[in-house]
Amino acid sequence: MTTPRLLAVEPLTRAAFLPFGEVIETEGRASYPINGGTTDRFHDLAPVDVQASSGHALINIFRARPVVEPVTIRLLERHPLGSQAFVPLSGRPYLVVVAAPGDPLDPQTMRAFLASARQGVSYSRGTWHHPLLALDAESDFLVIDRGGPGANCDEVHLPDEAIRQLAPR
Amino acid sequence: MTTPRLLAVEPLTRAAFLPFGEVIETEGRASYPINGGTTDRFHDLAPVDVQASSGHALINIFRARPVVEPVTIRLLERHPLGSQAFVPLSGRPYLVVVAAPGDPLDPQTMRAFLASARQGVSYSRGTWHHPLLALDAESDFLVIDRGGPGANCDEVHLPDEAIRQLAPR
Repeated sequence: MTTPRLLAVEPLTRAAFLPFGEVIETEGRASYPINGGTTDRFHDLAPVDVQASSGHALINIFRARPVVEPVTIRLLERHPLGSQAFVPLSGRPYLVVVAAPGDPLDPQTMRAFLASARQGVSYSRGTWHHPLLALDAESDFLVIDRGGPGANCDEVHLPDEAIRQLAPR
Repeated sequence: MTTPRLLAVEPLTRAAFLPFGEVIETEGRASYPINGGTTDRFHDLAPVDVQASSGHALINIFRARPVVEPVTIRLLERHPLGSQAFVPLSGRPYLVVVAAPGDPLDPQTMRAFLASARQGVSYSRGTWHHPLLALDAESDFLVIDRGGPGANCDEVHLPDEAIRQLAPR
């Protein structure tokens, strides 16, 4: 097999990520004072979308081993019944690979982002994404997703011509 | 007014916190491998309880100024329509003050805990609690709570005899 084509790794911004979900960060977001002015609330940075299913939202922690670079993207998954949010707890950047929601997966829509240690992401319901890609060391992430009955994970192995290697950062 | 009586600050453990909600931590919790074994999932550390209301769950960030010690507890609040979870993002311990759910507030049930930088808390629906008590420096917390119609914050100013000063740590 030939070496996979490269996929550029972009900085993570709200605008660039909008087709896939929300960036959970305070940078550039408005806040308002609460608790007698001792606290600023950055309100509703991302919705937890489990409404239309019989499920409910859960809080979890995922502990991810770091990737070995260069990273090759061979599969993506999606959760048809709810959003899934990841917020880094270990103070390290990480990689995010997504493709537009839709059936079947269109590998042409695949994008890669470098998230900073101060950025979480929420994948909208149905957004295709790669499992966690931690960098440098084992890293914990707070994860808010859906529990409940029903099949909530579709996985697709990319055809050979759609496999990509992430470009050097 | 006389000096308030002291309230001991206990270490935060799941067992001690059970009457008030959940401790969100990996310590002592089971996990199972996901993502081809590259990640451990600590599943369902806390529920997000917005089911019985017309609301929905939200992800927010609260930025709290640090307290000036000693801390005097003069008021508590509760959210009757949903749970509220706080997970520290700034790598610093913080204080948690709670009282048992119930109407009216029973100040005799008030407890204070020192949470580590690796412990989040989820207040069960209706658990009385003090607003954020960050320590040492301005600190960000990821907050998962309820949005939607209806009055979801009751605040009670403690009568003089119930006011407490947190004991030195």
